[in-house]
Amino acid sequence: MNRKLLLVSNSTLHGGGYLQHCQEHIQHFFGQEVKRVLFVPYALHDRDAYTKTARDKFQSLGYELDSVHEAANPVEAVRKAEGIFIGGGNTFRLLKALYDNDLVTEIRKRVLQDGIPYMGSSAGTNVATISINTTNDMPIVYPPTLTAISLVPFNINPHYLDPDPNSRHMGETREQRIVQYHEELGTPCVLGLREGSMLLVEGNKASLLGTTNARLFQRGKQTTEFEPGSDLSFLLIDAP
Amino acid sequence: MNRKLLLVSNSTLHGGGYLQHCQEHIQHFFGQEVKRVLFVPYALHDRDAYTKTARDKFQSLGYELDSVHEAANPVEAVRKAEGIFIGGGNTFRLLKALYDNDLVTEIRKRVLQDGIPYMGSSAGTNVATISINTTNDMPIVYPPTLTAISLVPFNINPHYLDPDPNSRHMGETREQRIVQYHEELGTPCVLGLREGSMLLVEGNKASLLGTTNARLFQRGKQTTEFEPGSDLSFLLIDAP
Ligand SMILES: [Ca+2]
Ligand SMILES: [Ca+2]
Repeated sequence: MNRKLLLVSNSTLHGGGYLQHCQEHIQHFFGQEVKRVLFVPYALHDRDAYTKTARDKFQSLGYELDSVHEAANPVEAVRKAEGIFIGGGNTFRLLKALYDNDLVTEIRKRVLQDGIPYMGSSAGTNVATISINTTNDMPIVYPPTLTAISLVPFNINPHYLDPDPNSRHMGETREQRIVQYHEELGTPCVLGLREGSMLLVEGNKASLLGTTNARLFQRGKQTTEFEPGSDLSFLLIDAP
Repeated sequence: MNRKLLLVSNSTLHGGGYLQHCQEHIQHFFGQEVKRVLFVPYALHDRDAYTKTARDKFQSLGYELDSVHEAANPVEAVRKAEGIFIGGGNTFRLLKALYDNDLVTEIRKRVLQDGIPYMGSSAGTNVATISINTTNDMPIVYPPTLTAISLVPFNINPHYLDPDPNSRHMGETREQRIVQYHEELGTPCVLGLREGSMLLVEGNKASLLGTTNARLFQRGKQTTEFEPGSDLSFLLIDAP
């Protein structure tokens, strides 16, 4: 499989600028062959402002950026894209807009069949996986399904957060929420990507990049920690 | 309208036992006429264990507790109930199970027409409102709609959490999430109930109980803070 994915946990790391913490990875990922990246701003309400932010950053890295919301025909825009970047925001709003614009199947086809590079950040990482069942976002709108673009056969929890031992708040911890997901039958692995980490997928090889560990949750198994540089290719094998 | 609701933010307050922080309110709410309360444990996976926890607590307060999951016919159980308590857990799982068991319409009818008291805690408070659009929970399952029992014409965010000024985490704050909800057209008020607070509704009168302030978000308006004892009856008037 010709797939090429860069799935980033978070767009902004504390103290840094937009996409600053992963900018070298972005340049290495899109490389010199890609000249224009197609941006999907659907996760935020103000698509124009969001596009400006993303465009400024991508131009500073040497890429032109077109936004799908500026295209007369979004499906056509995906068909012609050299590379795709889906930004963060609200995952429910993003997935609903992807379905409303008939882009889910088209993006999957371009990425898995044609091999164009796909970068996602936060919500854009959630929609690249099998489903948005493990998003942290509030369900502010109702998408037609939680099934997502399915570029990988597992789930990711972006912005993964360790329990705060000093907290007096009684809402579920992130770990408890993922454990509740795995109480449901037939649920796939969940990779908890802490802020600062990202997953690079090239064909059937997956590796952890960035500066923080990732935590893997598997139904009925012990959770495991992985350090940056770890080979996570086993996650790409379709599991029952 | 004959409605009687006790909508609690959280089942357990830091340092206390299950439902301990609101036990006097529970006794005052169900009073002496109600002898048996019908419990809905659908928000947690282990319904038997959950029922035991709730039963022990309610018995200590002088009430027998029947669980809807032990009834041969859940709809019949709701039809015969003297009072209902829906406990917390995962809101998506809870709402899906309520629809799967045809209980949404039946509960609404018993509470709004027959006037039986309804107590909800956390997820049980979410499903009492117009929709679960402002739950904090992870969408671990896909309910047939986000529309809920609609015992009140607005939304609640339970476990409302103020932004932590020392946090280095870049995920959205609770306030940002609710603001994103209000970017959508025609969205109703959201009452942020901090842990320790609860809303008592009697007919067309609503008041804030407990020990913490509540924060009200209205689309296109300034957010407002309300202290315990505040009259929130204006929330019960159906707004556009
Ligand atoms: Ca988000
Ligand atoms: Ca919950």
